[in-house]
Order: sequence, then C-alpha cells, then structure tokens
Amino acid sequence: MSIVRVHNFSISLDGFGTGEGQSRDAHFGHAGDRLHEWMFATRWWSADGNAGVDDAFVQRHDPGIGAEIMGAGKFGHPGWEDEPDWKGAWGANPPFHTPVYVLTRHTRPSIEMEGGTTFHFLDASPAEALAVAREAAGGSDVRIGGGAKIIRAFLAEGLIDHMHVAVVPILLGRGVRLWDGLEGLERTYRIESTASPSGVTHITFARTGA
Amino acid sequence: MSIVRVHNFSISLDGFGTGEGQSRDAHFGHAGDRLHEWMFATRWWSADGNAGVDDAFVQRHDPGIGAEIMGAGKFGHPGWEDEPDWKGAWGANPPFHTPVYVLTRHTRPSIEMEGGTTFHFLDASPAEALAVAREAAGGSDVRIGGGAKIIRAFLAEGLIDHMHVAVVPILLGRGVRLWDGLEGLERTYRIESTASPSGVTHITFARTGA
Ligand SMILES: NC(=O)c1ccc[n+]([C@@H]2O[C@H](COP(=O)([O-])OP(=O)(O)OC[C@H]3O[C@@H](n4cnc5c(N)ncnc54)[C@H](OP(=O)(O)O)[C@@H]3O)[C@@H](O)[C@H]2O)c1
Ligand SMILES: NC(=O)c1ccc[n+]([C@@H]2O[C@H](COP(=O)([O-])OP(=O)(O)OC[C@H]3O[C@@H](n4cnc5c(N)ncnc54)[C@H](OP(=O)(O)O)[C@@H]3O)[C@@H](O)[C@H]2O)c1
Repeated sequence: MSIVRVHNFSISLDGFGTGEGQSRDAHFGHAGDRLHEWMFATRWWSADGNAGVDDAFVQRHDPGIGAEIMGAGKFGHPGWEDEPDWKGAWGANPPFHTPVYVLTRHTRPSIEMEGGTTFHFLDASPAEALAVAREAAGGSDVRIGGGAKIIRAFLAEGLIDHMHVAVVPILLGRGVRLWDGLEGLERTYRIESTASPSGVTHITFARTGA
Repeated sequence: MSIVRVHNFSISLDGFGTGEGQSRDAHFGHAGDRLHEWMFATRWWSADGNAGVDDAFVQRHDPGIGAEIMGAGKFGHPGWEDEPDWKGAWGANPPFHTPVYVLTRHTRPSIEMEGGTTFHFLDASPAEALAVAREAAGGSDVRIGGGAKIIRAFLAEGLIDHMHVAVVPILLGRGVRLWDGLEGLERTYRIESTASPSGVTHITFARTGA
C-alpha cells in the first residue's frame, strides 16, 4: 500500500524547523546550515562520511518514493512568486527525481527539470493535494517534504503515516515551529527516540494501524 | 566547588514543563501525571521499578544538594498566596530535606516542615537568591527545582552549571514552555542526548568551563 512519509525533517531543541529572516541568500534564515550539518557528515553526502545511525535514517529519503508534496516556503524565499524564472534553490537537477507538488496560492505552469523532477503548483487542501500526488506516484509512497507549516497541516488532518524528525541540539529561539497546535498527537502514533553519537536525536512516528 | 544543578525537569516533545489550567487539584493542569510517569516506573520510586538509565538519572536528585530554589508556581497553585495555611503539596515531610527558597513577590514567614525541609520566601533576583541559597548550602550544591519560568530565568542569567531535562514523547499543545527566549544556549553548554527504552530522552547540559 502507498503510504505518506516525512524524512529528515530537522528541528532545533526548541522546535523550530527554520530560522527567522528567510531570504534568497539565506533559505533557513538565521539558522544557516546548522539544522542540516548532521546530514552533511554522513556517507550519504560524501564518501568519507559516517555510516552510523544518522546515515541509516538519511538514506531512507528516496527509496520507494513516487512523488513529493512541499510548501511554498520550501520552494522559494518570501517573494519568489514575483520572480517568473525562479525554479527552486536546487540547481538544474534537483534531488527529488519525481513529480513535486508545491502547495501555494501563487500557482504557475509546471517546470520540468533535469533528472526526473517536475515542479507542479497546486492551490489545494492537503487531502486534495495528496490525492493528486498519490495518483502520480503510481503505487509508490508520497513524501511530505516540509517546511514546518505544511507538515503541521498534514499532521493535523491525520494524513501522515510515518514521520522522522531529527532534533538538533541547538536553540534557535525564533523561526517557524513544527509542533504548534498538535496536542495529543501521541495518541495515534507509536513514537520512538534514538540518540546518535553526533548529538542529534531521531524521533520516529509510526501511525498505529497504518 | 558548589555548583548549580537542575534534575529531572520533564517537558513534553513540544517543550511544555507544565500544562494549562493549574489548580489546587491539578498541579500540572491538563498534563496530569503524564510528564512524570517515567519517574514512577523507576526503582527510585518503588522497589520493583526499573533500574536502567531513567533510574540512574532520577537518583541524582538528592546527593550533594544543600539547598533548593523553586518558583512560586511550583510551591503553589494560582491563588496559594491567599491561603495562609498553604504549605506546598508534598505533605508534612516534603522530599527536599534542606532549606528551600521560594521565589515570589508574595513573601510570608518561613515554614519549618518535618525531615529537614524549611520553606523560605524570597522576593529577589536569581543572582541574589542564589547567593542566599549557596550560603545556606554550606559548600554543597544548589538545585534549581523549577518550574519552567524559574529555570528559564536562571539560564538566561548564566547561573546554571548542570541541567538534566527529560523529554517525554507526548504533545501537550499548551502550558508553560521551557525553551522560550534562550537562543544560542548551546554555545555555553556541552549537550548530550540519551534515549531510554521507556521512550523518554534525557538531555544533559554541562556548562563548558564549569
Ligand atoms: N528543517 C527542515 O528539515 C526543512 C525541510 C524543508 C524546508 N525547510 C525550510 O523551512 C522553511 C519553509 O517552511 P515554512 O513552514 O516557512 O513554509 P512551508 O511549510 O514550506 O510552506 C508554507 C506555505 O505553503 C502555502 N500553503 C498552501 N497550502 C497550505 C496549507 N494547507 N497549509 C500551510 N501552508 C500552505 C502557503 O504559501 P502561499 O502564500 O504561497 O499559499 C504557506 O505560506 C524554509 O526556510 C525551508 O528552507 C526546512
Ligand atoms: N516539569 C517538571 O519537571 C516540573 C518541575 C517543577 C514544577 N513543575 C510544574 O511547573 C509549574 C510551575 O512552573 P511555572 O513555570 O508556571 O512557575 P515557576 O517557575 O514555578 O514560578 C514562577 C513564579 O515565580 C515568581 N518569580 C519570582 N521571581 C521570578 C523570576 N526572576 N522569574 C520568574 N518568576 C519569578 C513569580 O511568582 P509571583 O507572582 O509569586 O512573584 C512567577 O510567577 C507547576 O505546574 C509545577 O507543578 C514541573
């Protein structure tokens, strides 16, 4: 069965999925790269990286995924909607290699990139977007790619089956929180924690019955 | 040297140190006992409890402590200041067995309890309160007992040397947050994470140079 998964979503100890002050030159605002350094230290990123639990989690990002849904805030910095040539921050060959559905009120024609990624723009509810992405995924799983607002919206509607969150031991103090308004989430998920030697804690949510 | 320690401070995954709606009958508001069940499952609490990492952490609460500082919100529910006979929620023999300094604008005469606990009421800054508690501790360590607001105030002034926080895998959604306004705390602490089979994650902060 096709399920809905979140991978490698990184938050600070105080729960922020991105910093304040996102811009074209600072996609994560004042957080900089600090939420993702643990990924850059793995073998997935470079041949001499670590091969431990961080790598095991990070490598799950791609296999079995047939489509991604992301928020407008992940696709572009504030103001991207006024840049007709904006194609995301990932270069000519983005690391998705599937259809990607960008949820936004600012829709535009689809953009075909190299390597199998096509960006489609949808003004739709989470459930509607999921129906479209599932169809495109053709039996494979759908990844919810973030940011925090989009993951929250999908969680609030009970649409996520598996979620992997990496808690990074820094305090950002400001930015966009992941956990707002999700009281009682533990009632429908089996939650596990795994501490890594890197300092990151991996928290996994498995929907009970999913 | 006498240091300043926090032990067993329990927060939800979304960072709340207590729930909403604290009252005489519900000290943790809508959180109930859920933040502390992991402690009740240890050998420290009952003879047939577990003896693993949760117990190792919880047992550190008492040894070497000569005084505690707590907030008015830990000492009493909202309105305690209008109850002249209120002596805390711990019964005749509270589990402190040292002088305890309650930080509050609503001071009252000291209360001597059984078992070595005396409650003193101080309207003072964190640094002033610490000077008084250190003196009383006579060379032993001072524990900052919580709640969240008091710990935050001591952290913000750089007064805490060791801190142990237990993250419980529940989402409370509302209450008093521990982490507010502490951007950059990681710069002055070595932070470690230890996942327990119970589902709790122990996060420890050791002040670098302390
Ligand atoms: N920590 C990580 O691992 C991670 C992963 C991915 C991204 N990020 C970072 O997170 C940031 C983006 O996250 P974000 O939380 O600010 O934004 P986001 O979740 O990416 O996108 C939110 C935007 O999506 C649109 N939207 C459409 N339907 C929506 C719905 N049902 N619910 C909510 N939004 C909807 C809205 O934009 P419109 O006004 O256009 O409709 C909204 O502002 C970026 O800094 C990105 O770099 C972090
Ligand atoms: N999660 C845990 O492990 C744990 C541990 C202990 C307690 N708790 C719970 O936490 C709750 C209490 O925490 P809380 O955060 O609401 O309150 P708190 O930190 O216990 O106390 C805050 C109060 O202390 C007084 N105060 C005096 N000087 C202060 C200063 N410099 N900074 C801040 N406050 C100062 C103020 O009361 P006045 O108006 O009287 O001045 C303030 O409202 C209770 O529900 C308690 O049961 C949880």
